[in-house]
Amino acid sequence: MNTSHTLANIRIVLLETSHPGNLGAVARAMKVMGLSDLALVNPRCEIDAQARARASGAVDVLENARVYASLDAALADVALAAACTSRRRDLPHPAYTPRQAAPKLLGLALTRPVALVFGSETYGLSNEQLMKCHWLLNIPSNPEYASLNLGAAVQVLAYELRSHLDDAVLALPEFEPASHAAEQAMLAEMEKTLVEIGFHDPENPRRLMPRLRRFFAKAGLEQEEVAIWRGVLSAIQKNRALAPKMPNNAVPHAELKNKVSQ
Amino acid sequence: MNTSHTLANIRIVLLETSHPGNLGAVARAMKVMGLSDLALVNPRCEIDAQARARASGAVDVLENARVYASLDAALADVALAAACTSRRRDLPHPAYTPRQAAPKLLGLALTRPVALVFGSETYGLSNEQLMKCHWLLNIPSNPEYASLNLGAAVQVLAYELRSHLDDAVLALPEFEPASHAAEQAMLAEMEKTLVEIGFHDPENPRRLMPRLRRFFAKAGLEQEEVAIWRGVLSAIQKNRALAPKMPNNAVPHAELKNKVSQ
Repeated sequence: MNTSHTLANIRIVLLETSHPGNLGAVARAMKVMGLSDLALVNPRCEIDAQARARASGAVDVLENARVYASLDAALADVALAAACTSRRRDLPHPAYTPRQAAPKLLGLALTRPVALVFGSETYGLSNEQLMKCHWLLNIPSNPEYASLNLGAAVQVLAYELRSHLDDAVLALPEFEPASHAAEQAMLAEMEKTLVEIGFHDPENPRRLMPRLRRFFAKAGLEQEEVAIWRGVLSAIQKNRALAPKMPNNAVPHAELKNKVSQ
Repeated sequence: MNTSHTLANIRIVLLETSHPGNLGAVARAMKVMGLSDLALVNPRCEIDAQARARASGAVDVLENARVYASLDAALADVALAAACTSRRRDLPHPAYTPRQAAPKLLGLALTRPVALVFGSETYGLSNEQLMKCHWLLNIPSNPEYASLNLGAAVQVLAYELRSHLDDAVLALPEFEPASHAAEQAMLAEMEKTLVEIGFHDPENPRRLMPRLRRFFAKAGLEQEEVAIWRGVLSAIQKNRALAPKMPNNAVPHAELKNKVSQ
């Protein structure tokens, strides 16, 4: 299999970037490793003279960058989104080093877009943004000072991907991964269904949806599995519609949690 | 063996750096990976406000940087100097990727300073500067645009070293490497001796010394070997002094080269 277009399927997604110089540094870091797909979600700065100066010979990457109004829009067609962060989370997604993740990311990228997501310089990634990603990527760093510059972080990730290019074919997935958009739509439908059957109280969510999102992130949802889950949800809703209108006797998730204990 | 001070023995040597922002970026790239020893050879700029801004939380690395008037001075005590370059040379030193080189560099750095040398932003490394190094390090990159920013190149190298930290003990050398200063002094003595015996014509050098330097770089000169070579040179000089003053009948290197052909 020809792997020459694999790196073209790696999308760098920058959230709310505030320094033009960082946009330029990211573009250069990408191009030197053969990446070209740059997505800017709600950038807080312009692609100005400073950005172009820092991009040096990679101004084309800046000029071809696409601007999105939401992370969902930037991720709509991707098979997997990996969030680059040095923060530890109390509800962790699957976490890998760039070296561990690179072969599988490239395997997916042989046939589908894959995203690496970077938070803003000041605030990093919000929990909500993180929940839309499947993996966390932690760059090994000095525990006493782990603050990589945005361009430097992109450089390390892009370098890891390029250095593993020959391994991509080995990691070619045997399944058709679901798109981000299909997965998000299914999860929204699942939440709605769980509310309808009285298991999920949106006013008292007790982290149910984050836990379910994490479960699906770990599983790596396939296209056929989206169809299966859609079928399950449809069947639940149909049953509910046919059921006699009587007090709901399902045990709500919040109460279940209290009984099962933490 | 305790490896905690290994990274402290990795010296980043920057030659004739012209942009203050790059000094700051390098300091930050170093500190996030646990490096701290920064050497500036004839810097063309000051550590100014821009440098400090780009250094962010790594201003201490900038403030502790030492300034040298020559590459030799910056390398005097190192056991090995590796030059980071994307250029191909017609007289190549041993060349490695950062991943290949990292375990051995760390093994040496368990006990001795080791240097990574970076040329100026505009001119890179001169052949003369390169000849003072033992290895070339080539970061894998896009053949159509291989121009890594200085800070980005330091980031990749520092990242590779940190990610191999646990391998350092495995690569602990069994010998005592010669210092750069001892090696350079021996090579200067060798050149002088080769001139004296009529083998080397400094006016028509035909690349003799670069080839010899490359040979010693490949060999990885040990302390005991410096003593051996010094002994050899001393014996040659002694013999020469004792020899009757008559026309030199040694075949000069330049003529030898012509006979042997290229």
